[in-house]
Amino acid sequence: MARDRTAPPFITFLSDYGHADEFVGVCHGVIARRCPAARVIDLSHAIPRHDVRAGASVLRAALPYVPAGVHLAVVDPSVGAVGAQARRAIALLTAEEDRLLVGPDNGLLTPAAERFGGVAEAVDIGRSRERLEPVSRTFHGRDIFAPVAAALADGALLSDVGDSLPEQDLQRRELSSARVADGALRTHVLRCDGFGNLILDAREEQLVALGARPGDALAVDHAGRVHSARYALTFADVPTGALLIYEDAQRMIALAVNRGSAAELLEAGRDDELVVRPA
Amino acid sequence: MARDRTAPPFITFLSDYGHADEFVGVCHGVIARRCPAARVIDLSHAIPRHDVRAGASVLRAALPYVPAGVHLAVVDPSVGAVGAQARRAIALLTAEEDRLLVGPDNGLLTPAAERFGGVAEAVDIGRSRERLEPVSRTFHGRDIFAPVAAALADGALLSDVGDSLPEQDLQRRELSSARVADGALRTHVLRCDGFGNLILDAREEQLVALGARPGDALAVDHAGRVHSARYALTFADVPTGALLIYEDAQRMIALAVNRGSAAELLEAGRDDELVVRPA
Amino acid sequence: MARDRTAPPFITFLSDYGHADEFVGVCHGVIARRCPAARVIDLSHAIPRHDVRAGASVLRAALPYVPAGVHLAVVDPSVGAVGAQARRAIALLTAEEDRLLVGPDNGLLTPAAERFGGVAEAVDIGRSRERLEPVSRTFHGRDIFAPVAAALADGALLSDVGDSLPEQDLQRRELSSARVADGALRTHVLRCDGFGNLILDAREEQLVALGARPGDALAVDHAGRVHSARYALTFADVPTGALLIYEDAQRMIALAVNRGSAAELLEAGRDDELVVRPA
Repeated sequence: MARDRTAPPFITFLSDYGHADEFVGVCHGVIARRCPAARVIDLSHAIPRHDVRAGASVLRAALPYVPAGVHLAVVDPSVGAVGAQARRAIALLTAEEDRLLVGPDNGLLTPAAERFGGVAEAVDIGRSRERLEPVSRTFHGRDIFAPVAAALADGALLSDVGDSLPEQDLQRRELSSARVADGALRTHVLRCDGFGNLILDAREEQLVALGARPGDALAVDHAGRVHSARYALTFADVPTGALLIYEDAQRMIALAVNRGSAAELLEAGRDDELVVRPA
Repeated sequence: MARDRTAPPFITFLSDYGHADEFVGVCHGVIARRCPAARVIDLSHAIPRHDVRAGASVLRAALPYVPAGVHLAVVDPSVGAVGAQARRAIALLTAEEDRLLVGPDNGLLTPAAERFGGVAEAVDIGRSRERLEPVSRTFHGRDIFAPVAAALADGALLSDVGDSLPEQDLQRRELSSARVADGALRTHVLRCDGFGNLILDAREEQLVALGARPGDALAVDHAGRVHSARYALTFADVPTGALLIYEDAQRMIALAVNRGSAAELLEAGRDDELVVRPA
Repeated sequence: MARDRTAPPFITFLSDYGHADEFVGVCHGVIARRCPAARVIDLSHAIPRHDVRAGASVLRAALPYVPAGVHLAVVDPSVGAVGAQARRAIALLTAEEDRLLVGPDNGLLTPAAERFGGVAEAVDIGRSRERLEPVSRTFHGRDIFAPVAAALADGALLSDVGDSLPEQDLQRRELSSARVADGALRTHVLRCDGFGNLILDAREEQLVALGARPGDALAVDHAGRVHSARYALTFADVPTGALLIYEDAQRMIALAVNRGSAAELLEAGRDDELVVRPA
């Protein structure tokens, strides 16, 4: 359904393009040509390459802190695939706050949409009239996603930029979740940040459900090796080099080493299961 | 010749400064002081250090995707040299689209200018009244190029910011080109991107001239070692780890490994010659 | 004292957050929500992690080149500490140019303030009404510093965003300085840039005080190993691979290797003392 709305001038941009190339800059250029008034905020371009789930996790966590507007996200391992392996290109409108999400239909966008009441409207933009012709096979960020995002920032309606798509046809991606059972918290590494902190899929109430209180000693089991950690409010609560478990700024539980790297200490990475128990 | 024009408010910025320092940020600051209305788009600051040809190649490929305006580019191995080794600082107006290019006179800008009909007007900005005094010996990006770019974005004419320079005095730099002969395509690595893809100086019609069609097997000879590759439309056309040759988003032929690095597989880098034949 | 002023729309942003995460992007988002008109210039996010002195040095050197406005800086090893180890969060107004500095009270801001006549007014923003509630324990950039910076850019007075703080209560941090004695210049490495150049705390007049003139040979003693260097005006004055000592773009003396890394050649890093003598 088309909506009467004033397009916001902000576009946030998240991708796995990195900064070793001109890919991000060229997308900025494409946006500026289509909607010179748009203001682009680079959320992150350091999503691990092809890691749709990490991108979905960062996007979902970050969006509440940025202005409602157009949210362009590109982590797209299947770009250019045809036939049965092809993925759609989509734009979504959220039920709350009228946020517009643009990107591949591979589960990157839907967890973020859930934060804003779910998907109110969806369109397939693979054949959008906003595309840059001829569309390249490998750079849909430039040729499809960026120009559609710019058109939406410029005030276009979803119905102007794509073909209506039933919400139930969208690809979903479950982000893992932790659970407490038998006196243990079974949790998973969602991602590792640039400081070597391991972001888990647990929440602080699950630590509370374990009976743990800030200051308590905990045992963290990874792949059969058990590490001593402290449930801390802040890095400064433990000595340099010590392992701590804490609630991070996104309200997620994380493992860190004060002035060190938890990823290196535990030799742990994305998707690994960790079991946390009172020590 | 001075032209009556409305200065565009967009400045694109390309350099080899990297992001480990404040150099890029300081140039943004200098631009904002001289022309607060200018909008700066960072095209790339990851050009390999001192690699004028790589910078020229990226600039030439990217400019059609960004708004016409001022295009600031700094890859400047001879900065600060005096006497016979000194290079000029220049600003150019292109014959088509009135694009303004600002940077060192070492061949970085001229290939991009050729894309827009060549150079209509050139000035030497080494003694521009827009310079920040005193001019440092090693940071002309900040002291000469950025303030001149900002002045042009603010509406200054070329004749306001420098001294007229005959076009034939400009330094030229030929970018290499591929050729087909004796049933083989002799091509060169223009640059390696952040994913390990090797960007070649060939175009798809040269593959066609070889008699190759998408899906065909090809042999790629590098330094006497022959690798099997497939002429593919997209990464998804070959198995994980396999070598493919394809037309990339800039319409250049590239070598890639699906979810891997062609640069590592071939142990090839910039300027290396590759010979491609039907397998 | 509250001042009658028109808030500048520019916010410069310096931190040690790096670009591997969405931290910088999220702070941009927070700023855009509070002050959509603000223009943010990323000065650098590559300050070595927790290196307050390096951050102070870069901030002090860069500010004269950026528009007067709000200068947000976050290098904050003690974030989240409580009790005796806690550090204040502050905003400062400089005596000259009405620059507004926002960040932790750990000496990061005061050297920059000294460049603009010192501190005219200071407030503690730890309990600012501009904070994002609930304030996280580890991401004060997002929850305190960015929203306060945005409020100031939007025209708020210091007295609107914090509680008055006597200037003498601010934490100070001395940046080291070089001295000439007994025919030798004793100097220190302030920081190493991305090219491996070693930025020293000396000034060119101190080389002149040594009796050195451009072109002269110098001996550089580091940890008992003596290296031959040339006092040069520019990199091009010495052969590839040779060590030079020169005045850099920030008017600081630096050591470099032409097309190489002085940090690697000397095996020197931050805080190391170097002794320079005529050769």
